[in-house]
Amino acid sequence: MRQVVECVPNFSEGRRMATLDAIQQAIESIQGVRVLHRTSDHDHHRSVITFAGTPEAVLEASFVMIKTACEHINLEEHRGTHPRLGATDVVPFIPIQGVSMADCVAMAHTLSKRVAEELYLPVYLYEEAAQRTERRNLADVRRGEYEQLKQEIHLPHRTPDYGESFVGTAGAVIIGARKPLIAFNAFLNTTDVSVAKAVAKAIRGSSGGLVGVKALGMSVNGQAQVSMNLVDYQNTPLYRVLALLSQEASHYGASITHCELIGLIPQDALLDVALWHLQLPKEAHGQILEHQLAILEESATNP
Amino acid sequence: MRQVVECVPNFSEGRRMATLDAIQQAIESIQGVRVLHRTSDHDHHRSVITFAGTPEAVLEASFVMIKTACEHINLEEHRGTHPRLGATDVVPFIPIQGVSMADCVAMAHTLSKRVAEELYLPVYLYEEAAQRTERRNLADVRRGEYEQLKQEIHLPHRTPDYGESFVGTAGAVIIGARKPLIAFNAFLNTTDVSVAKAVAKAIRGSSGGLVGVKALGMSVNGQAQVSMNLVDYQNTPLYRVLALLSQEASHYGASITHCELIGLIPQDALLDVALWHLQLPKEAHGQILEHQLAILEESATNP
Repeated sequence: MRQVVECVPNFSEGRRMATLDAIQQAIESIQGVRVLHRTSDHDHHRSVITFAGTPEAVLEASFVMIKTACEHINLEEHRGTHPRLGATDVVPFIPIQGVSMADCVAMAHTLSKRVAEELYLPVYLYEEAAQRTERRNLADVRRGEYEQLKQEIHLPHRTPDYGESFVGTAGAVIIGARKPLIAFNAFLNTTDVSVAKAVAKAIRGSSGGLVGVKALGMSVNGQAQVSMNLVDYQNTPLYRVLALLSQEASHYGASITHCELIGLIPQDALLDVALWHLQLPKEAHGQILEHQLAILEESATNP
Repeated sequence: MRQVVECVPNFSEGRRMATLDAIQQAIESIQGVRVLHRTSDHDHHRSVITFAGTPEAVLEASFVMIKTACEHINLEEHRGTHPRLGATDVVPFIPIQGVSMADCVAMAHTLSKRVAEELYLPVYLYEEAAQRTERRNLADVRRGEYEQLKQEIHLPHRTPDYGESFVGTAGAVIIGARKPLIAFNAFLNTTDVSVAKAVAKAIRGSSGGLVGVKALGMSVNGQAQVSMNLVDYQNTPLYRVLALLSQEASHYGASITHCELIGLIPQDALLDVALWHLQLPKEAHGQILEHQLAILEESATNP
């Protein structure tokens, strides 16, 4: 079985496509990786690129993309609705096939060391790669954003995991390893961002809501949006999050106009949504034609 | 690409598992086919076996299963809630991979001829294999069931497509070719079968409902059930059918307790349900991790 690692970097640029093209080209210049998806948001002023490949190739591609982003993105000129610390804001490695979480944590360390030494950027390690408990949670690492980090980086609790305590115009990079997550945004039929903020607060785990949900309320194209990460979709499934979100929104007379998916979603997460709404048992997973045909194909190849 | 035909025969036996085991063994005795699913319903007194394989193997397996069913099932002793004409009631061939609908129609003719000549059963051709317009629709072919067919088979409009105008205790066989369909049952929280019948009438195409839906109301384990076939799930999707069903049931103060899937379902039909409920655009199909990884795998194998 081939080894596959997924990487889902977030960049603080969602408007100038030339910059994103340059970053994507840097990634694609490395043999053995493939860009699977790319999405940009004007109001968030942020883009997410999803790519995957062998561990060695993904590691090399991550380095060249961070280097390229540094050269093109100046945080002094960046104003978006999405919180961020740096040009390349977050770089998570995700084990997909034939690699362990420990392998991805090791990759996070290798990349962080090189980024600090060759690009002179401060690096914070998060999630599974975190070296301090208080840095596990991305939102905690990013608190105060780029502007506040400039003031505080010399304080002991802000010391980077790799690199000097110095913030340039490319800011800091947050590197880590994690399980796959679902990035999902719901748009409400209101311009009132306070509704989105209240709904986000109600549903996210950090303020009493659902454990596996991170959520922020923001304004996108003048429309209130609840922007979410579902970090444990097996235990906190998408349908339950959306049902609660819808219920909380209705308290303010608001409803969902449409949703969007950022990056990729594991297929089982979607199939779980279908089975739940169809009131079918979990076992119906075994009644999917394509799964059964794959078994048929396999038994024909290896009789 | 390997040729694959799916076959989903329905048998008028849902209670004696020894009979179903014998039929399944007959199918599995043929090299090149694989049973993918089997389900029996006591109240319908009916079973559905889903198998697939190469056209030649599927044809041979279909013949031996009909022969076995004839030897074990006596329609004179059969009373179930589901309409039927014979021991092997319906045999559809479904093109899956590397075969056309025309190939499946040809298979239907080959099987029908052999069943008539060697097993002396009357055969009716339906759906894509129908030779008369009025026999396209399965419900029309089956009208009056086994009991009425015995009285009417000598009438010109009842002349079989293959075989003599004679009905033995194994009844008649309905053989054809069709696109994949979804067999889906919804249980209502009432014992009143008239509610299920009214809901079925409201949603099915033949009485003013949704074009791609066939539906019957029946009683299963004392609970009202709407039993459906979705014959064009691309244009009449599962979520719309279930939404209408739910609405019609609510008119009688009834709601759905749970649903069941008979046989297999194409994966895209489930993914469509998920995207609709999540208010995601159709394009989100392209954001499924496994699809993208399959492309990655392919490009690694054939660079």
